[in-house]
Amino acid sequence: MPTQTQDRELGIGLVGSGFMGRCHANAFAAAPVLFELPARPVKAVLADATEESAAAGAQALGFARATSDWRSLIADDAVDIVAITAPNVLHEPIAMAAIAAGKTVYCEKPLSTTAASARRMTDAAEAAGVVTSVGFNFLRNPMIRLARDLITSGEIGEVTGFRGRHAENYMSSPDAPHSFRTDPQGGGALADIGSHIISLARHLLGPIADVSADCRTIYPDRPVAAGASERRPVEVDDMTHALLRFESGVSGSLEANWAATGRTMDLSFEITGSKGAIAFSQEHMNDLLVYSGSGAAAGYRRIEAGPSHPPYDRFCPAPGHHLGFNDLKVIEVAELIEAQVSNGRCNPDFREALAVQETVEAMQESSKARGWVGL
Amino acid sequence: MPTQTQDRELGIGLVGSGFMGRCHANAFAAAPVLFELPARPVKAVLADATEESAAAGAQALGFARATSDWRSLIADDAVDIVAITAPNVLHEPIAMAAIAAGKTVYCEKPLSTTAASARRMTDAAEAAGVVTSVGFNFLRNPMIRLARDLITSGEIGEVTGFRGRHAENYMSSPDAPHSFRTDPQGGGALADIGSHIISLARHLLGPIADVSADCRTIYPDRPVAAGASERRPVEVDDMTHALLRFESGVSGSLEANWAATGRTMDLSFEITGSKGAIAFSQEHMNDLLVYSGSGAAAGYRRIEAGPSHPPYDRFCPAPGHHLGFNDLKVIEVAELIEAQVSNGRCNPDFREALAVQETVEAMQESSKARGWVGL
Amino acid sequence: MPTQTQDRELGIGLVGSGFMGRCHANAFAAAPVLFELPARPVKAVLADATEESAAAGAQALGFARATSDWRSLIADDAVDIVAITAPNVLHEPIAMAAIAAGKTVYCEKPLSTTAASARRMTDAAEAAGVVTSVGFNFLRNPMIRLARDLITSGEIGEVTGFRGRHAENYMSSPDAPHSFRTDPQGGGALADIGSHIISLARHLLGPIADVSADCRTIYPDRPVAAGASERRPVEVDDMTHALLRFESGVSGSLEANWAATGRTMDLSFEITGSKGAIAFSQEHMNDLLVYSGSGAAAGYRRIEAGPSHPPYDRFCPAPGHHLGFNDLKVIEVAELIEAQVSNGRCNPDFREALAVQETVEAMQESSKARGWVGL
Amino acid sequence: MPTQTQDRELGIGLVGSGFMGRCHANAFAAAPVLFELPARPVKAVLADATEESAAAGAQALGFARATSDWRSLIADDAVDIVAITAPNVLHEPIAMAAIAAGKTVYCEKPLSTTAASARRMTDAAEAAGVVTSVGFNFLRNPMIRLARDLITSGEIGEVTGFRGRHAENYMSSPDAPHSFRTDPQGGGALADIGSHIISLARHLLGPIADVSADCRTIYPDRPVAAGASERRPVEVDDMTHALLRFESGVSGSLEANWAATGRTMDLSFEITGSKGAIAFSQEHMNDLLVYSGSGAAAGYRRIEAGPSHPPYDRFCPAPGHHLGFNDLKVIEVAELIEAQVSNGRCNPDFREALAVQETVEAMQESSKARGWVGL
Repeated sequence: MPTQTQDRELGIGLVGSGFMGRCHANAFAAAPVLFELPARPVKAVLADATEESAAAGAQALGFARATSDWRSLIADDAVDIVAITAPNVLHEPIAMAAIAAGKTVYCEKPLSTTAASARRMTDAAEAAGVVTSVGFNFLRNPMIRLARDLITSGEIGEVTGFRGRHAENYMSSPDAPHSFRTDPQGGGALADIGSHIISLARHLLGPIADVSADCRTIYPDRPVAAGASERRPVEVDDMTHALLRFESGVSGSLEANWAATGRTMDLSFEITGSKGAIAFSQEHMNDLLVYSGSGAAAGYRRIEAGPSHPPYDRFCPAPGHHLGFNDLKVIEVAELIEAQVSNGRCNPDFREALAVQETVEAMQESSKARGWVGL
Repeated sequence: MPTQTQDRELGIGLVGSGFMGRCHANAFAAAPVLFELPARPVKAVLADATEESAAAGAQALGFARATSDWRSLIADDAVDIVAITAPNVLHEPIAMAAIAAGKTVYCEKPLSTTAASARRMTDAAEAAGVVTSVGFNFLRNPMIRLARDLITSGEIGEVTGFRGRHAENYMSSPDAPHSFRTDPQGGGALADIGSHIISLARHLLGPIADVSADCRTIYPDRPVAAGASERRPVEVDDMTHALLRFESGVSGSLEANWAATGRTMDLSFEITGSKGAIAFSQEHMNDLLVYSGSGAAAGYRRIEAGPSHPPYDRFCPAPGHHLGFNDLKVIEVAELIEAQVSNGRCNPDFREALAVQETVEAMQESSKARGWVGL
Repeated sequence: MPTQTQDRELGIGLVGSGFMGRCHANAFAAAPVLFELPARPVKAVLADATEESAAAGAQALGFARATSDWRSLIADDAVDIVAITAPNVLHEPIAMAAIAAGKTVYCEKPLSTTAASARRMTDAAEAAGVVTSVGFNFLRNPMIRLARDLITSGEIGEVTGFRGRHAENYMSSPDAPHSFRTDPQGGGALADIGSHIISLARHLLGPIADVSADCRTIYPDRPVAAGASERRPVEVDDMTHALLRFESGVSGSLEANWAATGRTMDLSFEITGSKGAIAFSQEHMNDLLVYSGSGAAAGYRRIEAGPSHPPYDRFCPAPGHHLGFNDLKVIEVAELIEAQVSNGRCNPDFREALAVQETVEAMQESSKARGWVGL
Repeated sequence: MPTQTQDRELGIGLVGSGFMGRCHANAFAAAPVLFELPARPVKAVLADATEESAAAGAQALGFARATSDWRSLIADDAVDIVAITAPNVLHEPIAMAAIAAGKTVYCEKPLSTTAASARRMTDAAEAAGVVTSVGFNFLRNPMIRLARDLITSGEIGEVTGFRGRHAENYMSSPDAPHSFRTDPQGGGALADIGSHIISLARHLLGPIADVSADCRTIYPDRPVAAGASERRPVEVDDMTHALLRFESGVSGSLEANWAATGRTMDLSFEITGSKGAIAFSQEHMNDLLVYSGSGAAAGYRRIEAGPSHPPYDRFCPAPGHHLGFNDLKVIEVAELIEAQVSNGRCNPDFREALAVQETVEAMQESSKARGWVGL
C-alpha cells in the first residue's frame, strides 16, 4: 500500500470529453490510487464545445466545474495542468495560451497539424520553461521499457536492423468515411498512426537521419460521412511504406497503414543485433519476445509482463495479470505528475513530439520527390 | 460520453487495503468515469488492521474516513456496500454482520474457508434479501461473455468435452514459503486458484455432477517464512488433477496447479462441440479462439477484443486496445452497482460461490477416497 | 554427402500397401539417400490382400515381387525385414510367423488388439532373439529427443508434473461412420491415438504406476458406413480423460480424444520441473518450448528444429527447413536398419509397445471400475 | 494406392552431390512412390567435381553411373532430364549444353549469376522448345497454392497491400566467413534469399513494376574462411529493404536479410485486401492465416495443411501430419515429370526465374541510384 502523503494537490483542467478525454479522466482518478505520487491530481475544470456537453462531461467524468470556453479554463487559478484532448487544429492555440499562463501542458498526439506549428509550440514551451508531455502512450508500456533496457545494456549486441509498423484496419473499407483523420491538414495514416511507430523507433534506436517513403492513397474517394452516398476525393495516404537510416547507421523499414485488413493494433517491431533480437506487437502488449542463445538452445523467449518490469508492480504484485491500454495512460499521468512537481522532463515532451512530426513530413516530402530526404 | 445523472450516491466501505483493497478502490474510482451508472460510488470508509494502516490506506486510496474496527464501518450510515478484502477467516464474521445490517456485500473469493461456512453466509444473505457479489473477476472478461454466448446460441453445436486449468508458478520452488495460502483451513492450490477454473467451468457449462481428483503435495515441507531455514510440513495440495462429469453429461478434466513452472496465469480452457470449439487462456486475455468451418477453410480463428464485445466499448471505442486485469474489476464493480440499485442479482453471488466451494471440497474428498464423488 | 559403402543389402518384405504401406515404402527409399546406413534396404516383396492389389502396389511402390500370401513373403529368402502394415487383427499371426522364421519384425502400432496378444508376440520375439520395432513414429522427432535430453540432464530440475494429450477431430461428427477403429477388439480413441501420448509419456518420464480414467462414448451410435442411413451402436470410447501417477511419483493427466473438434494433431504435453518446463505440440512439430530463467528475463523459449538437433542434420544442413511427418518414418527406418545390422534394440520395440498396451487396458479397466488401477 | 502404370522411364542426370544434390536424389526416389506419375524417374548418371566424389555420390544417392565430366552426362542417351545443383557460375554452361542436346533442364535457383546470363539461357531454352524448371521450391507448398487460390478467387477482395520478407540468420555474426554467397558475382542477401520472396510476391500478385531499395553491408569485412584470422572486404549486401509497386498498382515492402538474428526461415508475407487478408511464414509452413468476417466474429483463422489442400493428400490422407522442406522438392519433381511427359510448362520456368533476377538487379541499381527504378 502506498505510504505517501499527498498533501499537495494539482488542479487538472481537461479540454475535451470524448474518448480521449474520458481516458485522461480515468487516468487522473486511478494514478493516485495506484502510484505513490508527490501530489494528488484534482479534477478541477472540464472544457468542451458547448455548455451542455461540458456540463454533462464534467458530471460524468467527475470534474468540479464546466465551461465551454477553454480560455477560462486556462485562466482558472485552480488549474495547474492543462490536458488537451481537443481537435488537432486547436492544439496550438490552447497550448500557446497555457504556456503563456505558465501552466504545464499535457497534449494528445499529434502535437499539432504541421511541424511548423509544433515547432512554434516547442519553442514557446522551452522559452517559458513549462513542463510538457505528449500522449504517445504506447511508450509507457513496461515491456517497451524492458526492450529499451536490453538494447541500451548491449544485451543484443550491436544493433543491425529495424522493422517497424503501425497497422490498423479502421479505413480498410472503401466506404469508411471522411473524418478529421482525412483532413489534408495533418491527416493521413502516416500522421495518424505512423507517428506512433516513429516515436517508438526513436525511443529505442535514436534519431532517424534519412528516409525514403511511398505514401499511397488506395481509394481515390470516400463518403463525405458515414452512410452518405456523396463521395469526396481523398488527399491523404491510406498506407505508407518507408525505408529508414538511423543516425547510428542502422537501416530498416517502417509501415503506417490504416487499411491493414486483419490488424487492429499491430504497432510492432523487430530489432536485430549482432548477439540477439527483440520483437514486439501491441496485439499482445504484455509480451516481449527476446532472442538469445546459440546452438541447440537458441530461441525467441516470450517474456510476460510482471512485477520485475516496473511500473507493472504498481498495478499488481503478481505476474500474468495483464495491463491494458488505459493503464498506459495511468503511467503517463503518473510520470507527468512526477515531472510537474520536480520540474523535470517528460519523455516524450514537445521537443520529442516535434522530431516525430518532422520525420512524418520528411517522409511525405520524400514520397513526392521519389527519393531520399535527410532530416 | 456517458449522459447519466448520477445524483444518487452509494457509500463504499472497504475492509482491507492490501493489493486487493487497492484494486477495489481503483475500480470504484474508475467505474463511474467509464460506465453510465445509476448511482455514483463514494469512497466513504476504509477499515484496516490498525489505526495507522487504516489512516494511511484511506489517504492513499481516497477514502473519507478510516477505522481499525470493521464493525464500526458496517454500522456507519454512510456505507451502503461493504467490500471485503480481509483475510479469508474474517469473511464470515464481516459478511454476517453486514447482512444483519441489511447492507450489500461484495466479498473477495474464496467466499469462506469451508463450504459449511459459505453455506451459512449464503443462507443468511438470501434470508435477508441483500445483494451479494463474489470477486471471481475473470468471469467479467468480455471474451468470456462471448464464449458463453457462442455456447448458449448453439454456435459450436452440442458440447462434447471440456479441458480446463488454472496454473501459475508462484509455489514452484521448494523454497517458496508458507503463507495463508498453505493454511489447511481453506488453503491449497485447488482452493486458491482451482476455484477460478471451477467457477469458469460452471459459468460456461453449468453444474458439475461428479468428480474424481488427485490432490498432490509436491514438496513435503516449506520454509516457515520467506528466507527462513526452519521448515514446516505442508498439509495442502500443490497440484490437483481432476476428472469431471457435468450434469449435462459432458466429460472433461481440470487442473489446479500453483507449481506450474513457466505459467504465470494459465487460466485456460478448451471446449469442444459437435460443430465447433472454443479455446481461451488468460495469458492472452484479449483473444478468444473459435473453431468453425469445414474442408479447406476450417480453422481456429483468433478473435481480438473490441467494441463488438460489450462492455469493452466502455473502455475504448476501437478494437485492439487491450483490457487489463484491473479493468475486469471495474466491470465487476459496475455490475454490482447496477444490481444494488435494481435489487438484482450479481453473477456470481454467494449462492454461486458456495457451489464452487462445494466442488472444491468434493474434489478433496474424492482424492482421499481414491474414487468418484457426486455433488 | 554420405561416404558409407552400402555393399550389404537388406531385403524388405512389406505387408500392406495402403497409406501406411506407402509411407514405409517411401521411408525405405529415402533412408539410404539421407542417412549413412550400414546396409542398403532393397524393396524385395510386397504382399497385399489380392493378387491384383499386390501387383499394383508393388509397381507403384517399387517392389521387385508381389504376392497375395504374406506367408510366402516371410518364407522368401530375399526378405530380411518383415514390415507389417496390415489390419491390426493380422499383426499377431504375421509377426509370429516372421519371428519363427528368425526375421526382423517392424510392426505398425498398436502392436496387437489386446495386451495378451501383444505379450505372446513379445515373449516369442525375445525368445527367438529377433530385432523388433514398433511404429510409434512421433518419438523419432528430433525435438522429442531434445526434450528427453533436457529432462535427463536435469535442465528442468526435479520433474513435478505432466499434462498430456492426443486429440484429433476425425470422429467429431455424430455421422463419422464405423470403421476398424470402432471395433471393440482393440478400437476406441484411447487405443487408437491415446497409445501415442502414453508411449510419449513413458519415453520422457518412465513407467506409469497407477491410473484412473473416464472413458466416454459421446455418440451412442454411428452409421455403419460412410453415408449409410443405418446406424449401429458404438462400443468404444470417443474420449478418455485419465489421472496418472508415474513410478517416479510425478502426477499428471492425459487425454485421448478423436472427437476434439478443432484439433488435427494435438499430440501435446507440458512437463514441469522445479527449475524449468517443456511444452510441445505435434501441431508445430518443429518447435520445442523450453522455459527457464528467473526475474525479468524468465520465459518460454521457442526452439526451432535445426542441425543442432540430430538427426535433423541428415535432412538439411540449415535450420528452419522443417521436417514433416514422413521424415519421422525415415528416421524410424534408419534406426531399424542400424539395429538390424548391429543386432541392437530399437526403441520402442515389442516390449515397450506391450507396456503401452497394458497401460491402455488398465485405463479401460479403471473406467469400468470407477477407481484407480495399478500397473 | 496409386494405380498408374509407369512403363515409361525418364533418365535423370544429376550434376552435383552436395546438400541440394542429395535433396534432388531423395525427391526423385520419393516422387514415384507418392504420386501417380506418367513416367518413372530412373537415377541414371551423377556428375561431380572429381571421379572420387562422383563415384561416392552415385553410390550414396543410388545413381547407376558416375562421371567427373558433366558434358558426358549430358551426352548420355540414358539422360532425359538434366538436374543442375552445381555452383552458380556453372549454371549457364551446363544448361546451354543441355538445351543444345534437347534435354529438359531442372536448375537450382538462382538461374544464373546475372540477369544477362539468365536471359541467354531463357532465350536458348525457348528457342529450342525444351522444358525448364527452376527450384524455387517454397512455391510448391500446398498452403501457398491455397493463398493463391484465395487471392485469385476474390476471397479477400481487391488486393491493397503487400509486406514480404525472407530473413535468416546465417550471416548474423561478423565472423560468419566469406563463401560463394558473398561473391560479388551473383551473391548477397538479396540475390541469395531475396529471390525467394520476390518469386513468391510475383507468384501471388503478378509482376513488380517499380522498386526503390536500400542494400546495406553491415560488416565491412569477414574472415576469408571459417575460423580464419585474415579478413577480406565484403562487397555484397547483408540486408536489403525495398519499396515496391506492382503492375496492378498495389504497393508494399520487401526485406531480404541474412543477418536477421533470431530468424531461421522467415520467408513470410502479409497480403491485405478490401475484404480479407492472408498471412504466412515458412517458420510454420503448414499453417496459412486467413482473415475474414466482420463484427464480433472477425479474426485471423489458422488453417492447417490437410488433404483438402492438394497435393498434401499425396503425402497423407489425414490433416495435421506436417509436410517438411524435402516434401516441397518432391512436389517440384512430380510437376517436372508431368511437364516433361506432356511437354507442358513448369512454374517457375527459366522465363519466370529471369524475371526474378531482373527484379533483384533493379533493386541493386535502385540502391546505387538512391531512387526508384522501373522494370
